[in-house]
Amino acid sequence: MSAPVAGEESPLALICGSGSLPLAVADSVAARGRRVLLFPLRGIAAPQDYAGRAPIWLQLAKFGTFIRAARAAGCRDLVLIGSLVRPSFWQLRFDLTTLRMLPGIAASFRGGDDHLLSGVARLIEGEGFRLLGAHEVAPEILVPKGVLGRVQPTPQDETDAALGFRYLHATGMFDVGQAVVVASNRVLAVEAAEGTDQMLVRVAELRRTGRLAAGEGRGVLVKCPKPTQDRRFDLPSIGPQTIKGVASAGLAGVAVAAGETIAAQSARLVEIADRENVFVAGLASGLQR
Amino acid sequence: MSAPVAGEESPLALICGSGSLPLAVADSVAARGRRVLLFPLRGIAAPQDYAGRAPIWLQLAKFGTFIRAARAAGCRDLVLIGSLVRPSFWQLRFDLTTLRMLPGIAASFRGGDDHLLSGVARLIEGEGFRLLGAHEVAPEILVPKGVLGRVQPTPQDETDAALGFRYLHATGMFDVGQAVVVASNRVLAVEAAEGTDQMLVRVAELRRTGRLAAGEGRGVLVKCPKPTQDRRFDLPSIGPQTIKGVASAGLAGVAVAAGETIAAQSARLVEIADRENVFVAGLASGLQR
Repeated sequence: MSAPVAGEESPLALICGSGSLPLAVADSVAARGRRVLLFPLRGIAAPQDYAGRAPIWLQLAKFGTFIRAARAAGCRDLVLIGSLVRPSFWQLRFDLTTLRMLPGIAASFRGGDDHLLSGVARLIEGEGFRLLGAHEVAPEILVPKGVLGRVQPTPQDETDAALGFRYLHATGMFDVGQAVVVASNRVLAVEAAEGTDQMLVRVAELRRTGRLAAGEGRGVLVKCPKPTQDRRFDLPSIGPQTIKGVASAGLAGVAVAAGETIAAQSARLVEIADRENVFVAGLASGLQR
Repeated sequence: MSAPVAGEESPLALICGSGSLPLAVADSVAARGRRVLLFPLRGIAAPQDYAGRAPIWLQLAKFGTFIRAARAAGCRDLVLIGSLVRPSFWQLRFDLTTLRMLPGIAASFRGGDDHLLSGVARLIEGEGFRLLGAHEVAPEILVPKGVLGRVQPTPQDETDAALGFRYLHATGMFDVGQAVVVASNRVLAVEAAEGTDQMLVRVAELRRTGRLAAGEGRGVLVKCPKPTQDRRFDLPSIGPQTIKGVASAGLAGVAVAAGETIAAQSARLVEIADRENVFVAGLASGLQR
């Protein structure tokens, strides 16, 4: 690996959590002609996804490996992308570089996700890297304003979406989650530590056991970022799996904040949405910033 | 059944949902010397609990039975108590009295629980009954200020409880739920349509699968009424089952709004809390009303 010559764009370092989003971003960036170095997280990213892509596997709490490899390759820009189950602080095994950074990391482990992530961001920038959002290097991954597939939301769906956006804005300062399920003017489920997929499983279960009064096919998954969200990481995202969960929960569709939500594998996502007869809409979330 | 003579307190009509709370309230009221008529809801209250207590079984959507029996017995005051899974409007089979009230009932079925319950309350009062809160006829069921058992909350537990109260106050206007789980300054779970017990099962699952960073025994179940809550029904409640759920989820204890939360079977509840080493505290929720 050699440092880039002057005038050439530096390679992008992509630290990859789980799911299909990291590779979609990598392919988008590569298609724009920029070299990408993949740093999947061991135990989190799936090894088979990275076969033949020359990954440099990282362990959580071993920043030293990353810093040496990224510097040697001349990387200056860094993107964190994919799902990361919040690790238990006491299960981590630290390397020396990380131990040096430990007081800052320990402080980041108290409080919500924003707190954890912004703490990690400061540490990375303290080492001379620039942290970018995935949408800054691959803007086409953002959901635009409008309906993505064939199915249109009804006026009631739009009313439910607006209620969901209001709820998420009102609770954003608590740094809890980025998704709710709303049906017929009622918030049925609120996402917290369990994540969106598990929340959808819960709604499917409530419906199956007859605990929901809403008719079949009604209700909306609503996702938008917290008002305080640092847009460089953890923007809300949807993917094919989300659409399958929405269909299993008997919901009418998914409404996300346009321009502030990432769609992984959007062609496949739309194909499944059309087949399952659910809508996917990017809407103005109404948030004043 | 005969109407009470002048000057005698009228018998209390108790419409009973599921759980142990209705019978606890009935016994408290009877111990004060007031006659109680039990109207358990068929398919919701457990038949064996009412054996030997001369229950008058009601069917949902058949208000006529209730109105005739309650009037014949001279009841003027009515309490609704116990859990009621929100029924599907279309699964109900209405009697004639109820059909007459239907436009009001249908309107009540849209929106959150407050909306449903306050609609039902108006309908009952329109028939000449006075709807009371369970705590008005049996004030000893409310959790007082202070620690109920042997185990004391730590300062961190109190900080977590305060965060939970703030979250519940901020979201009260959305009429979603009355409980959250908070651990180490992070809201881990938010109750909505699934109810408290299911939320605790979810937290236990998150802990078992290693998705929670908080150490064993940390975290608090926090319950308090919505700021807009009509205190005549659906005050938050805890019971022996709640304490078992708290222990299974590995939480340190439960903090409730003192004077605004009902404890079912409080002696048994405290016994289990002491055995499971979890605290039960009535705290000032900090809400300005």
